[in-house]
Amino acid sequence: MNNNSSILIDFEPISRRLHNIKNENFYQLLINSGIRVRSLCGGLGTCGKCKVLVQEGNKYLNPPTDSEKKLLTKEEINENFRLACQCYIVEDQIDLIKKHPQPQIRVFLPQELLVEDFKILTSGLNKGVNLNPNVKKVFIEVDKPNLKTPIPDLERILYALSTTSVTNKNQFEPSIEFETLKKIPLVLREDNHRITLTLYEDNKIIDCEAGNSVANSYGIAFDIGTTTLVGYLINLSDGKIYSIASALNPQTAYGEDVVSRITYIKNNKEGLLKLNSTVLDALNLIINETCAEAKISPSQIYEATFVGNSVMHHIFLNIDPTYIGLSPYVPAIKKDLNIQAKDLNLKINRGGYAYILPLIAGYVGADTVGVILSSEIDKESELTLAIDVGTNGEIIVGNKDFLATGSCAAGSALEGAHINNGMRAAAGAIDTVKIDPTDLNVRYTTINNKKPIGICGSGIIDTVAEMLKSKIITRSGGFNKQVTDHESFIKKGKSLEFTLVKKDQTSIKRDITISQNDIRELQMAKGAFYSGARIILNYLNQANESKLKIKQIYLAGAFGNYINKGNAKFIGMIPDISDEFIYQIGNAAGVGAQNCLLNTELRDKARKLIKKIKYIEIAVAQEFQKEYAKAMYFPHLDLENFPSLTEYNDIPKR
Amino acid sequence: MNNNSSILIDFEPISRRLHNIKNENFYQLLINSGIRVRSLCGGLGTCGKCKVLVQEGNKYLNPPTDSEKKLLTKEEINENFRLACQCYIVEDQIDLIKKHPQPQIRVFLPQELLVEDFKILTSGLNKGVNLNPNVKKVFIEVDKPNLKTPIPDLERILYALSTTSVTNKNQFEPSIEFETLKKIPLVLREDNHRITLTLYEDNKIIDCEAGNSVANSYGIAFDIGTTTLVGYLINLSDGKIYSIASALNPQTAYGEDVVSRITYIKNNKEGLLKLNSTVLDALNLIINETCAEAKISPSQIYEATFVGNSVMHHIFLNIDPTYIGLSPYVPAIKKDLNIQAKDLNLKINRGGYAYILPLIAGYVGADTVGVILSSEIDKESELTLAIDVGTNGEIIVGNKDFLATGSCAAGSALEGAHINNGMRAAAGAIDTVKIDPTDLNVRYTTINNKKPIGICGSGIIDTVAEMLKSKIITRSGGFNKQVTDHESFIKKGKSLEFTLVKKDQTSIKRDITISQNDIRELQMAKGAFYSGARIILNYLNQANESKLKIKQIYLAGAFGNYINKGNAKFIGMIPDISDEFIYQIGNAAGVGAQNCLLNTELRDKARKLIKKIKYIEIAVAQEFQKEYAKAMYFPHLDLENFPSLTEYNDIPKR
Repeated sequence: MNNNSSILIDFEPISRRLHNIKNENFYQLLINSGIRVRSLCGGLGTCGKCKVLVQEGNKYLNPPTDSEKKLLTKEEINENFRLACQCYIVEDQIDLIKKHPQPQIRVFLPQELLVEDFKILTSGLNKGVNLNPNVKKVFIEVDKPNLKTPIPDLERILYALSTTSVTNKNQFEPSIEFETLKKIPLVLREDNHRITLTLYEDNKIIDCEAGNSVANSYGIAFDIGTTTLVGYLINLSDGKIYSIASALNPQTAYGEDVVSRITYIKNNKEGLLKLNSTVLDALNLIINETCAEAKISPSQIYEATFVGNSVMHHIFLNIDPTYIGLSPYVPAIKKDLNIQAKDLNLKINRGGYAYILPLIAGYVGADTVGVILSSEIDKESELTLAIDVGTNGEIIVGNKDFLATGSCAAGSALEGAHINNGMRAAAGAIDTVKIDPTDLNVRYTTINNKKPIGICGSGIIDTVAEMLKSKIITRSGGFNKQVTDHESFIKKGKSLEFTLVKKDQTSIKRDITISQNDIRELQMAKGAFYSGARIILNYLNQANESKLKIKQIYLAGAFGNYINKGNAKFIGMIPDISDEFIYQIGNAAGVGAQNCLLNTELRDKARKLIKKIKYIEIAVAQEFQKEYAKAMYFPHLDLENFPSLTEYNDIPKR
Repeated sequence: MNNNSSILIDFEPISRRLHNIKNENFYQLLINSGIRVRSLCGGLGTCGKCKVLVQEGNKYLNPPTDSEKKLLTKEEINENFRLACQCYIVEDQIDLIKKHPQPQIRVFLPQELLVEDFKILTSGLNKGVNLNPNVKKVFIEVDKPNLKTPIPDLERILYALSTTSVTNKNQFEPSIEFETLKKIPLVLREDNHRITLTLYEDNKIIDCEAGNSVANSYGIAFDIGTTTLVGYLINLSDGKIYSIASALNPQTAYGEDVVSRITYIKNNKEGLLKLNSTVLDALNLIINETCAEAKISPSQIYEATFVGNSVMHHIFLNIDPTYIGLSPYVPAIKKDLNIQAKDLNLKINRGGYAYILPLIAGYVGADTVGVILSSEIDKESELTLAIDVGTNGEIIVGNKDFLATGSCAAGSALEGAHINNGMRAAAGAIDTVKIDPTDLNVRYTTINNKKPIGICGSGIIDTVAEMLKSKIITRSGGFNKQVTDHESFIKKGKSLEFTLVKKDQTSIKRDITISQNDIRELQMAKGAFYSGARIILNYLNQANESKLKIKQIYLAGAFGNYINKGNAKFIGMIPDISDEFIYQIGNAAGVGAQNCLLNTELRDKARKLIKKIKYIEIAVAQEFQKEYAKAMYFPHLDLENFPSLTEYNDIPKR
């Protein structure tokens, strides 16, 4: 049986493809592959814990068993939920399925099933902002009415408010949210006319409470990634983060990347609503988690801020993102938005608001605005390149004088997609690799030090850079024929693969290898980043009649944070400048959302930014194909800009 | 058996007290009293149509029968709903109930049960306004996007809008309702980028539709009375009323007047919500009725305006009105409000708004503001008295120079409450009365020419005025002892009553009479109106060092519309000026709501009005008791201001 005729099953959201050699049930397959999943009964079909969603290939599987009919609801069975331990490929479908070279079965593992958490980057470099939140609380003591001056409750409250320093302005007449107005008569009399008002943008009363609760004022900043969600709970009276919670974006169940989610929405009548409510449920869980940790109630959160790419932005807002996916890729709206939390079904204070950062274009979203705000690239004197590497890749080039941006759909290879042994950065993923050039011996580390299951993005970068340094591959990306007789090379069908980890040392009981195709995928990804940055730089230099060069680099996002920056330069993913000018700034988009929560002036800045920044549609630029082809080489076809490579100048070109 | 020991049952909302002499079941009693109610089976207990709510006295009644258990839900039975034909007083309770001089049983007849509609005044004098509504529709053709200028949908829409005349302003940047934003991508592409936008206050986009729908723009004006609700559907593109619908205010089931409804709210945990949802359901039914008649959809209504007294206002908004009922009688808010219809559960367009006219004080509400706006009392050169006679009575005195207002809780006697044979203005009510002074022969008319059931407000005014002219009563309100031996006087217990209609001519098979107590009730009501107007006038004259007199009178409201104005003067309810200066202006409050819908400038006027108008707490004015005592006489203790009376100067004082 050759490789192309085995039973392949893709498991999401860890992006891991497993070979089901013995046709085990899914629970056994996962356990035997070292992927720890929750179960109380150990696979006997009695606890109902190992619930999975079969996204594709249901027709190859056995029908639901009695156990499943008992432990799953009718709706769940209709939606193809299964218990992993009850679910296997039926005998007479095995030959059929083996004929397909690509996996025909895709299974989604809900977050609650996975025992080991994903490695989600939550921290980011924060340059600090002054505290000037959009929401402020004021304690006042209100006059009581009498028959001579029977002044309505609200008028007496506004009078008391006008005497405080917070609102000491001419012609001060704040409005009041209807929900808050309804509470006024009772709250006012609960603690003898002593109340605390919550003011939004200094001119709208969005809550009132009896007594003095000025200290209890919170906000939450959200980063809605295609793959991960992070929430930061911040006390608005001292500006400090009180707790952080993260989760996988459960939309992954309906499509790995933004394009497949748009497709899901197009093909399913209630698709948009489903994706929208799915992410909202997850955000509300994060709210509850952060609040539980900080020992506060969600009703004490008055504002939430949001960054995310344009498709995540639209789905979060329940706006159809279809036209972002079709040329000319326009979003419905790009300006920033203030929306009542209740209109979004966001479970914070009933009168609370959501602030959604603006978009730049269909494929450069609010996350990029967040990166610019937190990295302050717009204040740099030197020309700076910032790359946000997530499921999509956004590129910013600029300084205090000008700014331009574009995107490349290159991230997914770096999250394990399309790589044979690739996977996301979860427990058991190989994340760093060293190869001894003398004997091609491979050393590696894995996340959580577990026996390896697959390779994540930083591991792939390391592997390819090390293979290059060891001359296992050439600069054009092919295996170097002078070493392919080494024992690490094994033959799979007609192709060669280089073995990183032998099967007896893996969890999955199969070799973990790198194929020629895997290297091509990485070449395309890194070439897209490099040529994208190049095209934006060229544009800026032409528009400004300058000949500037990139002087510093910001690597944002989880992937940017974990990669070996030397190796990223070595393979030509980023320009080859001195390490000391390459900064790994972490979840800069999330920090941007935090900063907008802390200081409302940054929102004005964001509005100005999106008017100033030039958006470049990289793929339609005239010189794109030429630049891209050159950037496919390691590190590049032209070596003039890659001084680091000089000590390895004996790596063959082909 | 004397009068004080019969079985008395009060029926609402018609305010009719019936004597259940033979202890018939409630269906028989109603039918035999000439009150037509719906039934398919004619009282056999099989159709379930004759559903009534027992508000008081359940303990005297038989338990639910098998028929009722079959035809009513468990909830209905728990809430004391009964079938009128299954429901009677149990034998052993009859003696007990007869011991009480006041009725121990109160039964509410739902509107759908009553076959004959109430007489609800919907029309009013309209001086006309220019058409300048708050909501405008604009048809635009939007540019399509392209790769060179991939401008978001909303930006292209705003650009197209900025080129129209409607919004040709500097710095025009309207906001967009979130619900509308969500529709943009699909609606824009439905008819080839041709759309109609609905603008609210010229700066907020509250709806967008494919194609040109400029002509379909409606609004609805509501008058929320304590007893009745009226809705006027108006086309905002031509300013015309397309349909009118009215209903009884179903809150009457929980209390006849505002004070009893406040009590219900205080005594019931979910009382406010119950009263609120009850009236909202009725308003939404009116919306459906008016739309069905005009053959439009409620989604084509973009704005609704509202008038109502302060308690109706608060309950409609779901604001606790408790403190309006307690000294110093302050409302939670008095300024006007714009609230999204969806926040009120008002079923018009999803992006539509409600405009609620401002209040003046706890007992002078938005209905009074509506009366001022439509009657334009503030533009009169002559000092004018306006009285709005509904379940409560509001009094306005003013002209172009000054305005003052106050209220008196005097209306309910004029709606039949506290009057032995009183009832609301429904079919079978005696509405006009003439008495021949020579033989004391009574002629009368009834609403819908039905055999009489009781007397409504205008009938009571007529009766008392005619008794006065015939010297049956004296100016102090007592029966004139010189005529009490007339055959029309009958003895009930120790008291005398004057017979208006003999039992063989009534529906209820009992005499319809006027008692000494009934006359006292009317004296108190009319005295309150007159002395209230007097106190306001005195205040104005003192404040302005003037000696002005009332030169014209506006009688607003249903009651004001139907009374004989000569008789109202004759008994001293209103000042005695020439008939030609007394105007019956109908539902002036409702016209005020309509005008605010048609012309948004009137809302500025309303805001200014409530700052300008002086509110006077009549009952706490120093001279009130003295004025009130004098005004209890017919027409008044001092006759100098009542020239009309001269021809009847032989009516004895006592």
